[in-house]
Amino acid sequence: MLTLDETIEKIRPADRARMKVAQARLDRLTKPVGSLGRLEELAARYVAITGEERPKVPKAAIFTFAADHGVTTEGVSAYPSAVTAQMVLNFLRGGAAVNVLASHVGAEVLVVDIGVAHEFGALAGLISKKIALGTKNFLVEPAMSRAEATRALTVGVELAAEAVQRGIGLVGTGDMGIGNTTSSAAITAVMTGQPVALVTGRGTGIDDRGHVRKVAVIEGALTLHRPDPHDPLDVLAKVGGLEIASLAGLILGAAAHRMPVVLDGFIAGAAALIAAGLQPSCCDYMVASHRSVEIGHQAVLDRLGLKPLLDLDLRLGEGTGACLGISLVQASIKILTQMATFDEAGVSERG
Amino acid sequence: MLTLDETIEKIRPADRARMKVAQARLDRLTKPVGSLGRLEELAARYVAITGEERPKVPKAAIFTFAADHGVTTEGVSAYPSAVTAQMVLNFLRGGAAVNVLASHVGAEVLVVDIGVAHEFGALAGLISKKIALGTKNFLVEPAMSRAEATRALTVGVELAAEAVQRGIGLVGTGDMGIGNTTSSAAITAVMTGQPVALVTGRGTGIDDRGHVRKVAVIEGALTLHRPDPHDPLDVLAKVGGLEIASLAGLILGAAAHRMPVVLDGFIAGAAALIAAGLQPSCCDYMVASHRSVEIGHQAVLDRLGLKPLLDLDLRLGEGTGACLGISLVQASIKILTQMATFDEAGVSERG
Repeated sequence: MLTLDETIEKIRPADRARMKVAQARLDRLTKPVGSLGRLEELAARYVAITGEERPKVPKAAIFTFAADHGVTTEGVSAYPSAVTAQMVLNFLRGGAAVNVLASHVGAEVLVVDIGVAHEFGALAGLISKKIALGTKNFLVEPAMSRAEATRALTVGVELAAEAVQRGIGLVGTGDMGIGNTTSSAAITAVMTGQPVALVTGRGTGIDDRGHVRKVAVIEGALTLHRPDPHDPLDVLAKVGGLEIASLAGLILGAAAHRMPVVLDGFIAGAAALIAAGLQPSCCDYMVASHRSVEIGHQAVLDRLGLKPLLDLDLRLGEGTGACLGISLVQASIKILTQMATFDEAGVSERG
Repeated sequence: MLTLDETIEKIRPADRARMKVAQARLDRLTKPVGSLGRLEELAARYVAITGEERPKVPKAAIFTFAADHGVTTEGVSAYPSAVTAQMVLNFLRGGAAVNVLASHVGAEVLVVDIGVAHEFGALAGLISKKIALGTKNFLVEPAMSRAEATRALTVGVELAAEAVQRGIGLVGTGDMGIGNTTSSAAITAVMTGQPVALVTGRGTGIDDRGHVRKVAVIEGALTLHRPDPHDPLDVLAKVGGLEIASLAGLILGAAAHRMPVVLDGFIAGAAALIAAGLQPSCCDYMVASHRSVEIGHQAVLDRLGLKPLLDLDLRLGEGTGACLGISLVQASIKILTQMATFDEAGVSERG
C-alpha cells in the first residue's frame, strides 16, 4: 500500500482529452446537444477521471468518519459531545439519515471511528481506527500533534485503497463530530483567507450568543496558533479534526486511484481544502454534491473551483448530500452508456 | 369516471394541518431540526397532499404526451417535425433519455400519442389517444378547436384516474413535440402577462435569427387571436398544443385524486398555468422538479408559487427532470418513515 507521500506524488490531473471523447458521444445521443446540462458535464468528468470511455455504474460507498472535538467545551455547539458516539451507534443500526439516503441510492455506509471520545469495544460493522479520544481544545492547545494528523490522513488514504480493492468505484464523504463546523470554519478561514465571521455558521443550530462565542473562539485559536496556510498539516494539527484529516486522506486516496469522490457539505469542503493544499490536482476528482446552508461553504467551493449539483438547504452532514450526488453521478453514467444515438434510433438531426 | 368539470370541482387545497403533523415527526428524527431542508419540506407536502401520515414509497410513472405543432412550418424549431414521431419510437424502444432516467428512479414511462402527425398503426406500448395529426399553424388560425382542447384535457384527466386505479401514487409530466416551446412561450406570455421576448427561449437550440422569428411568430399569433387569460381553454385552443392540454388534464386529474404531480420543465409549466387557471388549488399538488434553461420558466414558477428542487441546466423535456424530482420525493418519504427518532435511538437532544 502506498504511503501518504507516495499517494500525493501519484495523483495526476484528470484526462481532459477523454472528456472530449465523452462529450462527442454525448452529442451523438438522441437529444439536442447539451440539453442534459450538468448531467452531461458529470458524465464527461467521470470519463476523464476514471479513463473508462463506456463505464459501468460503479459500486458506491459513503465513508462516514466520526470523531470528537475538544473545543466543544467552549460551548460552540447546540448538542452535547456524547451525541457523536450515540450517532455512531445509530449509523450501525441503520437509523440515521445517511443510512436511509445511502440505501435509496444503492450505496454502502462505512462507519469509521477515527477519534470518538468513547470506547465502543468490539462492535459489529464499526471500522475501528481510533487515534485519540477526540482532539484537544484548540482554544488552549493544538487540536492534535502533527503525527496524529498524519496518521488520520493515512487512515483515509488506506481506506480509499482498500475500497478500490473491494471493487468500489465511487466514494462519498461523510462525517459525524459534534463541534466539527467550528473546526471546519477555522480551516476555511485559514485556507481561503476569509474573515472568520464570514465563514462561521450555525452548525447544528446554535443561537445568536453561541454564534458570537463560536466566532470568538475561532479567532482566538487562530491568533494563538497562527496556522500556516501553506502547510496544510500544520492547519490540520492546530485547528483540525481527526475526521476531517481522514476525509482529506480519503480524497487524496481516491484521486490517486482515479476514483471520483463525491463531497458532502461544509466539513467535506474543509477536508478538501486540506487535500487540495497537499496536492492541487486532486480537485479534478471531486464532485461537489450540494451547497450547504453553512455560510462558509461557498468560500470553500469558490476556492476549489467547484459548482455544487444541488441546493436543497441541507446542513446535516453524515454524507447525506453526498448520497444524493451519487445518484446524479449514476444517472449521468447511464445517460452516457444506455441512450441510443441518432443513427441507432433513426432520428433526424437538426435542420 | 369523473368528467373534466367534475374533476375540477372535486379538487380541494392540500391538508395543511397534516403538514404540521408531518413536520412534528420530522423534528423528532435523529438530526438537527430542519437540517434536511427541502427534503423535509417535500416529505411534509407529500403528507399534506395524500393525507397519509406514514406513507409507503409510491409506484411512480412518467406520462410522456407526444404531439405535433403546425406552427413549426414557420421555422421556429431547430429540428424537423418528423422527429416527434421518431422519438415516440425511440421511447417505445427504451433508447431516450427519459427511459434511462425513469429506469434509474424506478418509474414507468407511459407514452401517449395525443396528436402526432404520423399514423403509427398498432404499436406495442403506445397509448393511442390521437385527437388530430398535430395542431394547425396558430400564426394563421387557432391551433385547435375548443372541443379538441377539451378532449385532450379530458384524456389527461382520465389517464390520471386510470393510473390511480392501477396503484400508481406519483406521476411525472413528460412531453415530446417539436415546436412545443413556441406554444408554451405563447401560453406563458398570455397567462403571466410577461412580454413575449422575455419568456421565449431557444428550445432545442435555434440560432439568433430563428429566435427573432420565433418571438415575432408568437407576437403575431397573440395579436391575431387575443387569447383571454381568464379563459384557459381559449388560450389552449388558440395557441396551445395537444400534449400541453393533456398535461394540464393530467395535473388536474392527479390533484383530484390527491396524488402529487412532479412537473418537468417549461412545457409542463405552461400546462400547469392552464391547470391552475382552471382550478387554482391544483398548485398544492405540484412539485417543480427543476428550473429549465428556457428563460420563460422562471415566470411560470413565480406565477405558480413553486420553487424548483434542481437547477442542472436541463432543457430536454420528455420528463427527464421529473424523473430526478421523483427520486427526491421518494428520498423524502424514506426520511420521514425510515429514520429513527431520538427516543428510539437513545440520542441526546440539544443542550
